[in-house]
Amino acid sequence: MPLSGPSGSLPLPAFLEKRLFSTTPRVRSLNINNINPHVKEAKYAVRGELAIKSEQYKAQLAKGEGKDLPFDSVVAASIGNPQQLDQKPITFFRQVASILENPALLDAQEVLEKSSGYKSDVFERARKLLKDVKSVGAYSQSQGAAGIRQSVADFIERRDGYRADPQSIYLSAGASSGVNTLMSVICASPQTGILVPIPQYPLYTATLALQNAHCVPYYLHEESNWSTNVDGMRDALKKAQKQGIDVRAVVVINPGNPTGASLKPEAINSVLELAAEEKLVCIADEVYQTNIFEGEFQSFKKGLRDLQKSAKNNDGKFDNMELVSLHSISKGMVGECGHRGGFYEMVGFDPEVVAQIYKFVSIMLCPPVLGQCIVEMMVNPPREGEPSYPLYRKEYDYIFHSLRDRAQALYKAFQEMEGVSCQSPAGSMYLFPTITLSQKALEAAKEAGKAPDDYYCMRLLDATGICIVPGSGFGQKEGTLHFRTTFLAPGTEWVGRITKFHKDFMDEYR
Amino acid sequence: MPLSGPSGSLPLPAFLEKRLFSTTPRVRSLNINNINPHVKEAKYAVRGELAIKSEQYKAQLAKGEGKDLPFDSVVAASIGNPQQLDQKPITFFRQVASILENPALLDAQEVLEKSSGYKSDVFERARKLLKDVKSVGAYSQSQGAAGIRQSVADFIERRDGYRADPQSIYLSAGASSGVNTLMSVICASPQTGILVPIPQYPLYTATLALQNAHCVPYYLHEESNWSTNVDGMRDALKKAQKQGIDVRAVVVINPGNPTGASLKPEAINSVLELAAEEKLVCIADEVYQTNIFEGEFQSFKKGLRDLQKSAKNNDGKFDNMELVSLHSISKGMVGECGHRGGFYEMVGFDPEVVAQIYKFVSIMLCPPVLGQCIVEMMVNPPREGEPSYPLYRKEYDYIFHSLRDRAQALYKAFQEMEGVSCQSPAGSMYLFPTITLSQKALEAAKEAGKAPDDYYCMRLLDATGICIVPGSGFGQKEGTLHFRTTFLAPGTEWVGRITKFHKDFMDEYR
Repeated sequence: MPLSGPSGSLPLPAFLEKRLFSTTPRVRSLNINNINPHVKEAKYAVRGELAIKSEQYKAQLAKGEGKDLPFDSVVAASIGNPQQLDQKPITFFRQVASILENPALLDAQEVLEKSSGYKSDVFERARKLLKDVKSVGAYSQSQGAAGIRQSVADFIERRDGYRADPQSIYLSAGASSGVNTLMSVICASPQTGILVPIPQYPLYTATLALQNAHCVPYYLHEESNWSTNVDGMRDALKKAQKQGIDVRAVVVINPGNPTGASLKPEAINSVLELAAEEKLVCIADEVYQTNIFEGEFQSFKKGLRDLQKSAKNNDGKFDNMELVSLHSISKGMVGECGHRGGFYEMVGFDPEVVAQIYKFVSIMLCPPVLGQCIVEMMVNPPREGEPSYPLYRKEYDYIFHSLRDRAQALYKAFQEMEGVSCQSPAGSMYLFPTITLSQKALEAAKEAGKAPDDYYCMRLLDATGICIVPGSGFGQKEGTLHFRTTFLAPGTEWVGRITKFHKDFMDEYR
Repeated sequence: MPLSGPSGSLPLPAFLEKRLFSTTPRVRSLNINNINPHVKEAKYAVRGELAIKSEQYKAQLAKGEGKDLPFDSVVAASIGNPQQLDQKPITFFRQVASILENPALLDAQEVLEKSSGYKSDVFERARKLLKDVKSVGAYSQSQGAAGIRQSVADFIERRDGYRADPQSIYLSAGASSGVNTLMSVICASPQTGILVPIPQYPLYTATLALQNAHCVPYYLHEESNWSTNVDGMRDALKKAQKQGIDVRAVVVINPGNPTGASLKPEAINSVLELAAEEKLVCIADEVYQTNIFEGEFQSFKKGLRDLQKSAKNNDGKFDNMELVSLHSISKGMVGECGHRGGFYEMVGFDPEVVAQIYKFVSIMLCPPVLGQCIVEMMVNPPREGEPSYPLYRKEYDYIFHSLRDRAQALYKAFQEMEGVSCQSPAGSMYLFPTITLSQKALEAAKEAGKAPDDYYCMRLLDATGICIVPGSGFGQKEGTLHFRTTFLAPGTEWVGRITKFHKDFMDEYR
């Protein structure tokens, strides 16, 4: 297992490094002090120390060496990874994928219909996709196969009521890859800054660290269900600009991660208005757009097009707004994380800038082609009247209800816990409760050399085998403590483990 | 289609930018002058202007609008993308993959054996892989599934006769992703330099540009079959060091791309000795290790282990050498480019550095899981005596001979062309001949605002629909001209198109 090295070690000044090494033989080319300092700065807690330790426990149990552990199974509640738990893939998608992998199965249609529940539309879709890509083993265009981008454009049009141009759509290896591309192009110097919601999915702060650019935080309001406050956004912007930071973009995660909060159209409009006034690129991370329990999803794209048509656009201020919206096959009811598929749509971007984005993505050749095909099926699933529709509908709804029920069960359990307070689950796959710890507990954490929420989560893992992520991994208002847990794990026994641990922990530090 | 913007535009000095824009309203946040200048500098000709234009021709023909074109098909001879042409995937791999995508097919074993030629070992392998990953739709460990890394370690041991540690193996989304990771970690400042062979696969120069680090070129010797000259490497190193460049690593592409050259053990040893003396990380890009027509492949890993055991290591100078070796499923007889799969093995790296590499890859979560499974099958294919072996052997050998025959046919054609001289094909998927153009042709290129080899390739595309890549895309000795063509396209008709074009071109500019 890799060691966790000293984080944030400063590189030695050149003269000192020379001095130290002038008589000490240098053993290797690379060491913790001379590698890219921006890589060292980047933090990504979701797969950090706790996740690594939970993998160690898992391996230990798998080898039958878990006798001394106070638990007999590890529960991964730290990562939005549905199919690692008990969520089944959508049958239609995997039936089509099996044929894409082995097109010889097109000749076994009758047999597969008879023995394995394949319907005729499975074969139709496989044929269409094979026409789009020729082979899932061949590189596609760097932007993604044209026929698949057309399907995505059609989906966006159906969703929003406004046309989309396939040329402005880029398929990607999950949304993470799209974010990485955008950050790499937008961040031009150490003065570049990007507005990022706190708490956020730490891909943003990690990528900004790698780019040596500024994260300009704007705080979400926990008290009002983690809402986005545009005044706070504007204040953060102005403050950063006064410090000489060239703020170029604002990230909005809607529905939120880790918060689950869902923005109403008015809130979306305020963000767009601010972005238009201040000439900010709006980066809308919408990967949880189908994970909504309260209210409905409206895309930023629709919001922008509505504004462009409205009286508010009398001076054309929305006409050249740069908006990029990201989606993924990893979340929703699809949950195909391991396939690495997603897309982003860019509107209002300067064509010369898009040409550079195109060049950037071409260096990594193309996104995984099977993942591109699953994007197509996600945006263009079986429709009513088609043979695979009933099963698709059933599976989709089952997963949806299952997630909602689990979210509720976890929420109820948190409401029973002393010192834990949680916003009602509005969406995404996570709950992000506040925890209040006693002074004694805070001191114990300090002694252990850990932030209090880190300490709590480590103690939870050691006691129960349950892996969650401390709030510090996502950012939080100074003086508050949180943790993020998924509600993907099956059953309720694991929730009982948390409740028991929590009670014992509170008693221990009373 | 994206425009090709002005390449290499310098960012405006701040005072000038302010001046220019103080009365001109700024339309957007991003423009060609303010995005990341390193993205602008990066060049990647393999998917550049010619590739884009050939896609346009292809679309035009597909729409039936190709009446005025002097050709009726586009031939992609620019990208090593075998399954886009007529190379078939290995049946065993795709049969297993179909089950991985739809594990319900495990229950259809009898039926698939009867109707679709599946053998029992296909189901065994699918079960093993499903045990390793649980679902191809679930994120794996960021380093790649443990069982698959074990298979890779076993392969390396069989290949080299030396054990490999699964912990030092990282699965990746193709080798390109591994290179990107390594460059991101190794390049610490604008002073960092990496020795890169010229000509090279331009991923290296592109990534170094993105990292704002120095490419320190060492020239391969065309006259001796593109051999690697360690004295030249040492000279380039010293020259760069004198200029204050902190040279940290040396890239070797073996077998070569675009050259196809294969290094003998003695040459590998010289490189390792230089790297040990000068404390350079050795980056061995070995993705073409099975594409060898002359001689045999020896891995850098074996070379290093041999040296460590030999008398040359009496002072332990090889003990702490840092070596990273990359492989991929995209090339060889496997050709599964679109699946994005590969691995790299790191030996001798400081554990704290490896921990940072681990963290870096964890930000992008994990490599595509299906691709990881194909890595497993590539390194652990059916063995003699197993049911799928005869077909595997037949397909593998057929592809190998087919590639070798096509290489020879193309080589012969080049030998007939005036002013074209080519090294005999030793490996990889490419030929990289020299072309000599007349003064008139050089002037015509200049008038057209293009480098001469760019001009030649563009004229070739316009006349024949064949897309190749000019030598400038890979780097070449000053004053020489080359182009790279794959030998993947089927048949010989297309070769005739090149021969005819070349004759006409030479006549035109005589």
